[in-house]
Amino acid sequence: MKTLGRHLILELYDCDRALIDDLAVVERCLRKAAERVGATVMAAQFHRYCPQGVSGTLLIAESHLSIHTWPEHGYVAADIFTCGGLDPRPGFEVLALELRAGQHRLQEIVRGLPDEIAAGRSILPADVTVTLRESGSGSPG
Amino acid sequence: MKTLGRHLILELYDCDRALIDDLAVVERCLRKAAERVGATVMAAQFHRYCPQGVSGTLLIAESHLSIHTWPEHGYVAADIFTCGGLDPRPGFEVLALELRAGQHRLQEIVRGLPDEIAAGRSILPADVTVTLRESGSGSPG
Repeated sequence: MKTLGRHLILELYDCDRALIDDLAVVERCLRKAAERVGATVMAAQFHRYCPQGVSGTLLIAESHLSIHTWPEHGYVAADIFTCGGLDPRPGFEVLALELRAGQHRLQEIVRGLPDEIAAGRSILPADVTVTLRESGSGSPG
Repeated sequence: MKTLGRHLILELYDCDRALIDDLAVVERCLRKAAERVGATVMAAQFHRYCPQGVSGTLLIAESHLSIHTWPEHGYVAADIFTCGGLDPRPGFEVLALELRAGQHRLQEIVRGLPDEIAAGRSILPADVTVTLRESGSGSPG
């Protein structure tokens, strides 16, 4: 596969419920994640829901970042999709640390042009990488 | 797992290169996909790159849609992330049809709160569903 993009699917659990319900905090964290990745932010949109929850996306020159929070569950769903050779993982470290995630699930998907399509090969589970570990077990990159 | 969201990861191949390089077309298609899904659009951001390519995201009340196009490869990477019980799949049908994808890869990921985390169970490949089929083999929903 010729890789055009790397897409991190992040599930953050046991986050600080006040922090993830604060639009300004959530936007600041996502922008910091984009900065840590080395991305160039083109546009931003954030919204706070009633009674709770924040959603936002950053359009970057190298694809996008998105975040959705469920303060009632302490849960955050975030995505970091990069192309142009940028490594999205340092952005994950920022989000997990800043939003004080107790646990997380991290899944990386390669986006691009599979030569396998032409050959009719089915996509295998091995095409998707899933890792699980405790937040805080590593330091931010 | 208590499902909070459904996330479709779409890879569209052999798309019409002129269509996917046209910002107005790409935005119209993504908005149509959101409408077909039954989503409420809160905000939109789109950008056309030089010499080619379009990126955009729609923030919806039920999460987001995103799209990135590589006209030089006839390739489109799109995401449809919905919560609140919305089915994202009709949105995929719109994009594949309107952008005239010759082939596609469709992957659905469940986003949410895994009870398995507490029990220390690793995420299994079965947690990720991957399907591959020819575009045009089904009719829009």
